[in-house]
Amino acid sequence: MKQRMHSPHTAEFFSGLIAIAVLGLFVPSVQCADPAEKVTKTRTLGIVLYPKFELLDVYGPAEIFGNLKPGLKLVMVAAEAGTVASVQGPKVVADYSFDNCPDLDLVLVPGGIGTLAELKDEKLHHWLQQRATKAEIVMSVCSGSAILAKAGLLDGHRATSNKQYFSFAAGQGPRVKWVKEARWVDDGDRVTSSGVSAGIDMALHVVARLYGEETAQKIADGTEYQWHKDPDKDPFAKFAK
Amino acid sequence: MKQRMHSPHTAEFFSGLIAIAVLGLFVPSVQCADPAEKVTKTRTLGIVLYPKFELLDVYGPAEIFGNLKPGLKLVMVAAEAGTVASVQGPKVVADYSFDNCPDLDLVLVPGGIGTLAELKDEKLHHWLQQRATKAEIVMSVCSGSAILAKAGLLDGHRATSNKQYFSFAAGQGPRVKWVKEARWVDDGDRVTSSGVSAGIDMALHVVARLYGEETAQKIADGTEYQWHKDPDKDPFAKFAK
Repeated sequence: MKQRMHSPHTAEFFSGLIAIAVLGLFVPSVQCADPAEKVTKTRTLGIVLYPKFELLDVYGPAEIFGNLKPGLKLVMVAAEAGTVASVQGPKVVADYSFDNCPDLDLVLVPGGIGTLAELKDEKLHHWLQQRATKAEIVMSVCSGSAILAKAGLLDGHRATSNKQYFSFAAGQGPRVKWVKEARWVDDGDRVTSSGVSAGIDMALHVVARLYGEETAQKIADGTEYQWHKDPDKDPFAKFAK
Repeated sequence: MKQRMHSPHTAEFFSGLIAIAVLGLFVPSVQCADPAEKVTKTRTLGIVLYPKFELLDVYGPAEIFGNLKPGLKLVMVAAEAGTVASVQGPKVVADYSFDNCPDLDLVLVPGGIGTLAELKDEKLHHWLQQRATKAEIVMSVCSGSAILAKAGLLDGHRATSNKQYFSFAAGQGPRVKWVKEARWVDDGDRVTSSGVSAGIDMALHVVARLYGEETAQKIADGTEYQWHKDPDKDPFAKFAK
């Protein structure tokens, strides 16, 4: 787009120039005071789609991680490539099938009422198990942790889930150290968040961990998001059942 | 789904029963103490997609409004039906083209770097002008207000926009009463929000206005979202340029 800046000197040109400068803030460069490898490594994040996923479970984190470009490549993956319908109705596109999905450094599993069917989906569980062995971090939002638990990927790990479905999720993984009062739980190569919006806070935390606090804050400010930085502060734990 | 509750009494049945009961909270029924017409009227919301729209500008409000089912029908519309790519990369689906889109009670225009091209898109402006004459409320998130302003749809109205692009948006509508310090601005049939995440607060406000405060709070709680209820409290106004 910067080539357009050499166009004629009209009022429209100058307003465009300003726009390019400020809109560029939406794609913050990966700059931080952390070790060099945090800056230079490009990771690939795969977000798993399935029928009746919860919209914000996917697109909250997708907004945050997607603004790391070029430090992160974001791909959407489902059992089959193509259109997937959310529980709220809107349809979105999976770029890859499980079979042709590129290597993933990060994996994120959303929740939603479609979780019920995915708890029985052994193809998904098997794919997640395979991908987890190579991934730096496997994440979940909301009832996505019930799927990870059912696939055995949270055994021995500390984890959380949506509060209004907490017992339901806990029932899928008796060997998981479930944490009821948590906005998110970082247990190293497994990071799980509470319900829906909590995925945004978890995503910012993971960005801070991998790309530096300054980068995460820049994305929070650019998206005008009031980041809740304390994982133990959970105003929705009172709804836990 | 409730019919499934009469299936055999297995452990899976009971876990399914619990799941159905709790997951049902994701689709709160439209119940409130407000006048009957607020409860019974089903509205159609059209969210406008265009190339390089900002993901959370669309899917924050889509999450909130989408949980009003069956009190609201949510449709995605673009110049042409089919796949549209966001600025962050993920592709999504427009159900309708401008030409075959059903009547809309509510219209929402997102922002994103694609705004720059849409400021010159007279077909979009004309379509918005036509739809605005029949709509109960026309909304925007982030730099979407620059598009509404350019189309003349905010003339004489109070409105806001993303703070880091504020002067840019203001430059598109010299007859608009721009409000710099605002999370969102409700000016009757025009409701505009500040950047990206602010669209979620605006959506909850509009739900409260049209469907009652109780319904909005239920959706905020169900999505574990800490709703910022004061439109005049804007922690990001300090970034205004």
